[in-house]
Amino acid sequence: MASPRIHLGPEQDPNLARAIEQGGGVSAPLEAAEAVVWTGRPGTFPADLPDTVRWVQLPFAGIEPWISAGVIDERRVWTSAAGAYAAPVAEHGVMLLLAGVRALTGPVRANSWRQGEFGARVQTLQAATVAIVGCGAIGRAMIPMLTGLGAQVLAVTRSGVAVDGAAQTVAADRTPEIWQAADHFVLAAPATPETKYLVDAGVLARMKPSAWIVNLARGTLIDTDALVRALVDGSIGGAALDVTDPEPLPDGHPLWTLPNAIITPHIANPPDGLPALLARHVAANVARFAAGQPLHAVIDLERGY
Amino acid sequence: MASPRIHLGPEQDPNLARAIEQGGGVSAPLEAAEAVVWTGRPGTFPADLPDTVRWVQLPFAGIEPWISAGVIDERRVWTSAAGAYAAPVAEHGVMLLLAGVRALTGPVRANSWRQGEFGARVQTLQAATVAIVGCGAIGRAMIPMLTGLGAQVLAVTRSGVAVDGAAQTVAADRTPEIWQAADHFVLAAPATPETKYLVDAGVLARMKPSAWIVNLARGTLIDTDALVRALVDGSIGGAALDVTDPEPLPDGHPLWTLPNAIITPHIANPPDGLPALLARHVAANVARFAAGQPLHAVIDLERGY
Repeated sequence: MASPRIHLGPEQDPNLARAIEQGGGVSAPLEAAEAVVWTGRPGTFPADLPDTVRWVQLPFAGIEPWISAGVIDERRVWTSAAGAYAAPVAEHGVMLLLAGVRALTGPVRANSWRQGEFGARVQTLQAATVAIVGCGAIGRAMIPMLTGLGAQVLAVTRSGVAVDGAAQTVAADRTPEIWQAADHFVLAAPATPETKYLVDAGVLARMKPSAWIVNLARGTLIDTDALVRALVDGSIGGAALDVTDPEPLPDGHPLWTLPNAIITPHIANPPDGLPALLARHVAANVARFAAGQPLHAVIDLERGY
Repeated sequence: MASPRIHLGPEQDPNLARAIEQGGGVSAPLEAAEAVVWTGRPGTFPADLPDTVRWVQLPFAGIEPWISAGVIDERRVWTSAAGAYAAPVAEHGVMLLLAGVRALTGPVRANSWRQGEFGARVQTLQAATVAIVGCGAIGRAMIPMLTGLGAQVLAVTRSGVAVDGAAQTVAADRTPEIWQAADHFVLAAPATPETKYLVDAGVLARMKPSAWIVNLARGTLIDTDALVRALVDGSIGGAALDVTDPEPLPDGHPLWTLPNAIITPHIANPPDGLPALLARHVAANVARFAAGQPLHAVIDLERGY
């Protein structure tokens, strides 16, 4: 296996320099490079990329500005950072689901033991079916976490093509079937006109009374007023939300104090951890490039991501 | 594969009747049985068990009373329910660790968004080393949960014999080495004279300032006063305790309100869920008995469990 010559620029980020080394690459000037790991924005990207550059790794998950700027050509492979930031968000989702299902808010807000009362509310994920609505990078990262915990996953994706590790995958047009079928729900779908108020009063009414909903996507996927009514009535188990509508959630909002609601202020992926995650992604792609394997997060100009 | 004839008694527990069927067994009177699934206590156990009975499944994890009563003989295989109740406790431990590491107490007790403040406290289990001190049935059940989440496990056992799925196993006499080596700690060891105050001021001082401790075992494994000092000083990340010393934790105790402490009132395994867990254990053992495979939780009279 040859050591690919990789140009890192415009900044010599030490995390990424180490990642290139870990992946088996060697540092090279642009003129002699087979690949480029880019740390900047589209405006500073070299206009004339040598034809010897066969692969460019961009530093962002969302690459719309790169497409608009016309930087991405079809003469080589381009990869984004899509998926690189998924694991901590997935972990946060599992944490919210577990804390909900095991009824942690009661004890955390309590000042006395109350064992009988709190113990009676504890559910388990053992053998539970967790539906992941919008099973992209974050959802796929949750699957080994949830199956390791003893749950099984019902994945909902646009195409319905079977997702690795999921017990079942259904296409988005069959979403209405899942609300009665699954025990708990994780929302990880993009915010689009079709997903606005995906979870509304009608959907909430069909969920099991023990069901918890975790939202990692965007607040607008849930009709907040309908959710508050369902939580007050106890018609569902609860909701654990890292995103809200409105966001930030205003002071005095009922979701702050309901016993079956958990709010975290959009902190699934704190900025401190991002450079290390990008470095891990780059190291993996450099190793794949060196070995001639398909790269992660290849950009498809037709699809736009 | 033959359907083994199994006697269920003295009570016709419907969960266990179904478990026997699920495992491939058929119901039989005692005189015609190859195996017995027992639901009662030692005092009611049949004095003259037919020699055709080759296996007896007892309904408890702790079988000291059965040994003292002299019920357990050496003419057949006896199994206990050891391990049957481990999974929900393991799940509770993972929940406590995740809630701690991802700093959930702040948002759960808050009434406003405070994103910067709370986001800055969030850690991750990705690539973290979690030491499980006393890696028995509960600890072993935690391993696939923690590795599925992206952590690795350092197991501490009496013998030090490698535990499946752990990145490293050390014998209990090397416990002093782990306090600096691991990122976080789960206590799941029995309460014995050797484990009393296992975590004391000296041990706490050697842990990383980001370390969380989860206690699923007995409160006396931790010197509570030393722990409170470490939490107030911020010399460790935090503590999430399902067991306390004293227990119940008295009203007004500082552990109720410290931002880096989580207390659950010994509810890792609520009584409601126990019958289903025993049924799962019995179904698995009946299937193994039918297939001539080694059974789970075989009692060793020499060892006493």
